Amino acid sequence: MKINIERLMGDIESYARYGSQPGGGVSRTCFSEADFEVRKIFAAELQEIGLAVEVDAAANIWGTLAGDGSKNKPIIIGSHLDTVPNGGKFDGALGVLIGKEIVRTFLEHDQRLRHPLKLVSFTAEEANDFNFATLGSRALAGKISADDLCSAENSEGAKLRDAISRAGGNIDKLSPADKNSIAAFFELHIEQGRKLEKQGLPAGIVDRIVGIYRDVVTVEGEQNHSGTTMMSERRDALAAAGEMVSAVQREAKQLQTDAVATIGKFDVFPNSANIIPGKVEFTLEVRSADKAERESLARSIRQTFDAIGAAHGVSVSAKNIYNTQECEFDSSLIGFLKGAAESVGTPYTVLPSMAGHDAMHIVSLGKAAMLFVKSIGGISHNPAELSLPEDIEKCANVLLQAVLLADQELKDE
Amino acid sequence: MKINIERLMGDIESYARYGSQPGGGVSRTCFSEADFEVRKIFAAELQEIGLAVEVDAAANIWGTLAGDGSKNKPIIIGSHLDTVPNGGKFDGALGVLIGKEIVRTFLEHDQRLRHPLKLVSFTAEEANDFNFATLGSRALAGKISADDLCSAENSEGAKLRDAISRAGGNIDKLSPADKNSIAAFFELHIEQGRKLEKQGLPAGIVDRIVGIYRDVVTVEGEQNHSGTTMMSERRDALAAAGEMVSAVQREAKQLQTDAVATIGKFDVFPNSANIIPGKVEFTLEVRSADKAERESLARSIRQTFDAIGAAHGVSVSAKNIYNTQECEFDSSLIGFLKGAAESVGTPYTVLPSMAGHDAMHIVSLGKAAMLFVKSIGGISHNPAELSLPEDIEKCANVLLQAVLLADQELKDE
Repeated sequence: MKINIERLMGDIESYARYGSQPGGGVSRTCFSEADFEVRKIFAAELQEIGLAVEVDAAANIWGTLAGDGSKNKPIIIGSHLDTVPNGGKFDGALGVLIGKEIVRTFLEHDQRLRHPLKLVSFTAEEANDFNFATLGSRALAGKISADDLCSAENSEGAKLRDAISRAGGNIDKLSPADKNSIAAFFELHIEQGRKLEKQGLPAGIVDRIVGIYRDVVTVEGEQNHSGTTMMSERRDALAAAGEMVSAVQREAKQLQTDAVATIGKFDVFPNSANIIPGKVEFTLEVRSADKAERESLARSIRQTFDAIGAAHGVSVSAKNIYNTQECEFDSSLIGFLKGAAESVGTPYTVLPSMAGHDAMHIVSLGKAAMLFVKSIGGISHNPAELSLPEDIEKCANVLLQAVLLADQELKDE
Repeated sequence: MKINIERLMGDIESYARYGSQPGGGVSRTCFSEADFEVRKIFAAELQEIGLAVEVDAAANIWGTLAGDGSKNKPIIIGSHLDTVPNGGKFDGALGVLIGKEIVRTFLEHDQRLRHPLKLVSFTAEEANDFNFATLGSRALAGKISADDLCSAENSEGAKLRDAISRAGGNIDKLSPADKNSIAAFFELHIEQGRKLEKQGLPAGIVDRIVGIYRDVVTVEGEQNHSGTTMMSERRDALAAAGEMVSAVQREAKQLQTDAVATIGKFDVFPNSANIIPGKVEFTLEVRSADKAERESLARSIRQTFDAIGAAHGVSVSAKNIYNTQECEFDSSLIGFLKGAAESVGTPYTVLPSMAGHDAMHIVSLGKAAMLFVKSIGGISHNPAELSLPEDIEKCANVLLQAVLLADQELKDE
């Protein structure tokens, strides 16, 4: 039994039309018009292939194929349909559409399962204007409450409550799933890095996800006239922040490990050609699979920021906005993925994920694991993001076999 | 004959209410609602004190007090009523309101003049969202044409043509004033620097204005995922631009002259915490009273940018958006200002202006000069901008006497 790669690639192209940009990118940030459109299409298609469709309180979209053992806990395949602004067509959508393809393949082959098989598209996995990444999976795992979401607004003043409601959710009815209520959760995703490409492998079995630390750093100097304020009299917030950008590069590079540090969002005030910047606000993000390394890198960068601030006579403050710890995936599911890869003859490696994914929140509800598909050039969050059909096909068949193995081997506890 | 400082300070406070901000700043950028309001008030007040009011095609507001010699060319006092975003209450408004105060003082003392005396408030002196600084004075001097203005829009898509029209102008009727049509133009302005304060002087007679060079620099790297792209694999546009910010500081400082270089506007794309910036666009501004120094500093910075870009594997391009040359003020008007300062016992120095002003465009139409009032702390383009009433009073009386001297001494040519 094999998935139909032409049909799957057709699906990927078809979904990429929602939010498509002139340069080939996809802008389908959560609760954008394109996101609302694709949600409707996805729910309708699940219904069409015969699944029971439900939208939960966090606006996650579920489709269920009943299993033979009516009391068994579900096996779930899923990811997300939202994208970053001007992102690619594979990030998120691939894991959702492969799930749909696997279900269609089972239905065509009249493959019965002992467990109910569920597909899910989680709400707002990507960073978005409401400042709630992995919203849907965190809500399901009980890591986010109605209170957290109640007052949230985006930069245009739209309320998160209303957006969730428009997507079919209801934040007043949020209730986390029970611990141990999931037999297995599989998330297939593009690697977004170059490790598989460098090793010439189509597939990567993910054993853990790195922790992510994110601060918002504010540098305040003195706003002044760009002509009349001599160089020696300036307290230029951007001059200080520019050195901080360089310091982040230097400190992360000198570790020579997989640790990464990034300044991705960077806003200058008042941002006018003839005014010396009085304030800069930027995000600092540090990722490493090694908690001690992550913490010491973040600490060391902060000390360097303070020293740069002092040298420039500007104030520096930081506020932590995100701090997720490492998560380890389930060894039995990793075993099924390995067994499946071997049974279909697909070479693989085992690697950590440097990116956060919905799966990291699902680990608290049951067994979970992830499978990576090779990315060409490691390009991600970019219109040029690419995974090849031959690699997608191999990984989809690995996942199909892993679901069958899990269905056979997992005993309800 | 002396100006009434209480009345003048009352005027300054009263005008600062238009566009006043919570922290004490004034946001009255050209063609903002606050600017439209203040234009109405100013025109009405000129009329009230008995001047003939006219709004020209560039929406500059003029008030004329007839002179005894009907064929004489006018003496003009003026500056601008627009501000930078969140600026102070003195920059621009002081020069306009002192003009109004001098006219009122003449009228109260029944002081007759041989020349017509005109007040002017120029349109859009400050950098603004339509990208036309010193718009009104440039249009008057014939340095800007209807064609230049026709297609201009602000970042919200509003047309400059419509804004000028709403302010009472008409870009189809722009026609420059004749060369040599102005007997004398005096602009009083806050210094915006610390030279007068350091020397303990209330007044500075400005003999020239420095040239200003402005580029928009675009740095393009590769947008990518902040977790999965190893430090060694990145082409981070912000990492390169951060080094460029530091290079600008270093190169301008090491000259140890009055030359200044500033990056004031700095935009990062796509500007998201978990995306490595693919593009940065920023302004580079270089000012120096010495043309050769200004050109060599701009050139040297551009070479350093190219080297930094190459080291980071990013592309760097620059587009010049502004390039004004030095301008020298008229020696006879400088003489009248010196004579006036000596006659009222106000100590002064002669200095260049590091900032551009409307006066630099008026030099092509007749004699022009400027007078600076001491700024406290040199703070400018900032809500904390301050000049003291005692210094303002001294300078207003110097300007009043200089106008009288010019009126007596200047023979129509």
